[in-house]
Amino acid sequence: MQTIAASVYDTIFARRDVRGEFTSEPADAQVLDRILSAAHAAPSVGLSQPWDFIVIEDPDIRRDFWVHVDGERSVFAATLPAERATLFDRLRIEGILDASLGLVVTYDPDRGGPHVLGRHAIADAGLYSVCLAIENLWLAATAEGWGVGWVSFYRERFVRDLLSLPARVRPIAWLCLGPVTHQQAVPDLERQGWRRRVPLPTVVHHNRW
Amino acid sequence: MQTIAASVYDTIFARRDVRGEFTSEPADAQVLDRILSAAHAAPSVGLSQPWDFIVIEDPDIRRDFWVHVDGERSVFAATLPAERATLFDRLRIEGILDASLGLVVTYDPDRGGPHVLGRHAIADAGLYSVCLAIENLWLAATAEGWGVGWVSFYRERFVRDLLSLPARVRPIAWLCLGPVTHQQAVPDLERQGWRRRVPLPTVVHHNRW
Repeated sequence: MQTIAASVYDTIFARRDVRGEFTSEPADAQVLDRILSAAHAAPSVGLSQPWDFIVIEDPDIRRDFWVHVDGERSVFAATLPAERATLFDRLRIEGILDASLGLVVTYDPDRGGPHVLGRHAIADAGLYSVCLAIENLWLAATAEGWGVGWVSFYRERFVRDLLSLPARVRPIAWLCLGPVTHQQAVPDLERQGWRRRVPLPTVVHHNRW
Repeated sequence: MQTIAASVYDTIFARRDVRGEFTSEPADAQVLDRILSAAHAAPSVGLSQPWDFIVIEDPDIRRDFWVHVDGERSVFAATLPAERATLFDRLRIEGILDASLGLVVTYDPDRGGPHVLGRHAIADAGLYSVCLAIENLWLAATAEGWGVGWVSFYRERFVRDLLSLPARVRPIAWLCLGPVTHQQAVPDLERQGWRRRVPLPTVVHHNRW
C-alpha cells in the first residue's frame, strides 16, 4: 500500500475519543488553524458548508458548561440499573476543563440559500454535513498529536443560551481539543468494561438487509 | 510537519464528491474490506457502533434506485426559479450506474442496548456517529484511489422498501463507490457555477457567536 494510504489508515485506527490524556498546554494557533481548515474542507450537501466553529478559551464559559454536564451525568446515572450505575460511576465522560480548548460545532440551516441541492427530500442532510466536518477535524487533530473528546451530556438549549447562538442555529458537538500525552490503544469504554466493539462482518450485508 | 499529518491533510483536501469520474472497473474485495474497516473504526456515541453497510452489486436494485432518483431530480427542479433551473439542468447529481458499487449506510437506534451512554439528552447523537463513519470511509477510499459520491435525491421510505430494511433502521446515505480516474481539483458545484465555497474565517467565532 502507498505511504499516503498507510498514513490515513494509521490515523483512523489510532484516533480515540479522549477524556483523560489532555496535557492542558496552550494551543498552538497554527495547528488549530490547520485543523479547522481540514474541517472546513469536508463535503456538504449542495456545497452549503452549514457549519460554524466556536473556539472557547473563556474559563467561565467552560466552567458553566462543566457544571451543566455534571448535572446531566446524574440524570443519566439515575436511569441505570444498579450494576450499570456502579460501573458508570467509575467512568470519566469529559475533559472539559483539562483540554486546551473547547470547540463547539454548530449547524445553520439557512446557510446555502433557499434551494440547497440535495436537501429537499432529506431534511437532516445538513446535519450530516456538519458531522463529516467533525470527523475531518478529529482525524487532522489526531495526526497533529492532539486529541478530541466529544461531550454529549448536555441540553442543546443550555449551550444555545451559553454561547448566544441565533435561534435557528443548532449546537451539534462540544469538542474538548488540544495536545495529548498519547492516544489509548483501546477505547475507554471497552477498556473499562462498559461495552465491547463488534466485529466488522456483523454489520456488513450484501444487496439487501 | 510530519509525513503522517501531511498525508492526512493531502487526502482531506483532495477528497471530492464524485459523479463523473468512476471507471466502472470491478471493485477489489480487499480494498473494499479496508475501506469498510476504516468506517467501522469511527467514534460512536457510547461505543454503540450503530451503523450497517449494505454493499450493492445487483444491477436491478441499482437501476430501480436510479429511476427513483431521476424522479426526485424533477421534483427538486420544479421548485427552482427559471435561471437556477437552467443551471441545475446541466448538473450531474449522481454516478449510481457508473460506480463499481453502491454502498448504503444505515442507522440502527437499537444498537448498543437500552442505555446508550451519551444519548439520553441528544437523541440524534446516534445519527451523528453514522456520519463520522461515512467520513472515515470517504477518506480511506480517497487514499486508495477510489471515489465516493453521496446521493441524497431519494425518499427514505423508498430505500427502506428497496433493501428490505427493518422498520427501525434508517438509511442515512447511498454512496456511489469505486475506482476513479482522478479527483477533480475544484468541487463540481463550484466549477459549474452553482455555488462558491466561503472562506474559513467567515465561520470561525471566539467564545460566543
